[in-house]
Formats: sequence, C-alpha cells, structure tokens
Amino acid sequence: MKILGIDPGLDRTGWAVLESFPPAPPRLLASGLIHTEKGTELAKRLAGIFDELSSVIRANAPDEVAIEEVFFSKRADTQANTTHARGVILLACEKLSRTPVSYNPRTIKKTLSGNGSAEKLQMQKMVQMTLSLKEIPRPDDIADAMAAAICHIRVAPFKAALRAGIR
Amino acid sequence: MKILGIDPGLDRTGWAVLESFPPAPPRLLASGLIHTEKGTELAKRLAGIFDELSSVIRANAPDEVAIEEVFFSKRADTQANTTHARGVILLACEKLSRTPVSYNPRTIKKTLSGNGSAEKLQMQKMVQMTLSLKEIPRPDDIADAMAAAICHIRVAPFKAALRAGIR
Repeated sequence: MKILGIDPGLDRTGWAVLESFPPAPPRLLASGLIHTEKGTELAKRLAGIFDELSSVIRANAPDEVAIEEVFFSKRADTQANTTHARGVILLACEKLSRTPVSYNPRTIKKTLSGNGSAEKLQMQKMVQMTLSLKEIPRPDDIADAMAAAICHIRVAPFKAALRAGIR
Repeated sequence: MKILGIDPGLDRTGWAVLESFPPAPPRLLASGLIHTEKGTELAKRLAGIFDELSSVIRANAPDEVAIEEVFFSKRADTQANTTHARGVILLACEKLSRTPVSYNPRTIKKTLSGNGSAEKLQMQKMVQMTLSLKEIPRPDDIADAMAAAICHIRVAPFKAALRAGIR
C-alpha cells in the first residue's frame, strides 16, 4: 500500500510517499516540495500547486492520501493563504479519485510521539527513526508530510476496525 | 463587456453576470447559486463547486471576473470553509483564462453606497437601483455577487488609468 502525505501551504507544500506492508515499518519512496513565487497572483499560484500536485499523484499512484489540517494560528493572512492552497490540493486528490483523509496537527503529534504538543525537532526525530532515515528530514514541510502519512498508516486500520464493528 | 461577480461559500456560492457598456448603467444577464450538501466530504463539495463554476464560466463567457475576499469573522470554521471554496473558485477562473480580481467586502460596500460599513439591506437596495431590478435581489449570496461585479465595473477603469499613468 502506498500513502501520500501532504503538508499544505501557499509558499511551500511538502509531500512524501511511503510504502506500508505491516508489520514491516513504513519505507520512504519519494518526497518533494511544491514551491510558488511570492508576488505572483494568488490564482496563478493555486493553479501551479494544483498542476504540480496532480503530476505527483499521477507519477506515484498512491492508494490513499493523508493531509494535515490548517493550524489556527494568530496570523490570519498566513491561515488564509494555507487554506486557499489546501482547497486546490483537496480538489487535485478528488479529481484523481483519491478522497484525502484529514488529520489535525495535534492528532499527528500525539500519534507519532504520544504528546499532542510535541516540539518540531522531537517530531522530526520520530519521523527519522520510523523511516530509518540517515538524517533528520528537511525542510519542515517535507518532514510534516511524512508525519501525516505515518499518522494515517497507524490510525486508518483502527478507524476501519471501528467502522466494521459498528456495522 | 461581460463581468462575472462571485460571492464564495462552501454551502452556497452566489454568481451574477452583468453587461457593461458605459455610460449606460450595467444590466443583469444571468445569476445563480451553487449549492453543496452539508455532511458530504469536503473534497467532494469542492469538486462540485469547481465543476459547476467552470460550467457557468463556459456558458456565460465573461470577459472579467470579480470575487469577494473572505470576511474575517469570529467563526474560524466558517472562515476556513469559505476559504477552501474560494481556493477552487480562483482555480476554476484561472484554468479558463480569467484571472479574477479580488475585492474586500468594505471596498465593495464603500464603492456602492459610500459607506464601508453599510447594512445588508441598504446594499441590496443599491444593487436593485443600479440594475433596475423589480425586486430586491435574493438570496444574499446572489445580491453580494451582483455587488462585487458592480464594484469591479466602477473601480477597474480607475485602476487601469492609474497603471497607465505610472508607466
């Protein structure tokens, strides 16, 4: 099973594709950063993100997609930029028949580290260990995308079991 | 010249197409509401908005597009919903070669009524008068879309003149 994790952003959107065959630990297949230029029209930047992410999905053919929710920061402009980008990212996934699953940043931190308020460096070390990477993953956006994918790999089986149990 | 005005929203996106041949007052050609169902996956609702708005643009072939910016309300969830929707609306315009022009709600109110804090009913009466409509336009989302288009018709020539003067 291949999982695409996404950390959405207008300036930089991080993505990572992991392979998961439990009980083996997940393995990193590919990762990257979608960058758009400041000072360019918002609509053109959104089209750039949509097109590039669509190419990433076509090239890597993930089975499932996990995407981080927007953190409600105090900076309303940053939040609006990220949410505009997240809109076209969700659309790109949907248009290629992968309805993405959203995870709250706190859920991702808690699932990986046991602590919903874990520090960035602690999270990156957990990602490094889980994927047996030689170095701490950089930049933050790619590390966060890996974390979203790992969270989905751990949480999704329980969600499916719960749904099955309810029926 | 045909102008498409858009009032973005996840539940309801209002749109209106006006014809403008100054000095004649603008004339309403068409208007409508794009509705998505609550309880449906966010990505599927966004795809619905994207597809329906793309059809509206193809059917009406506007020369320019004016879109309202998101009002920073106190309800963070409403704001996030509207901004996700606005992302795919900007993308739909861009993909059909109409880079939209954004207007702040205060600018729209001030341009139409002289008052940046005008009440909703006052704004709707101004729209009714400007377009010589028999009744006050309803619902709010369509009236707001008409207001965005009227604002663009009044403001765009001044912006163009300013740009020409600077060169």
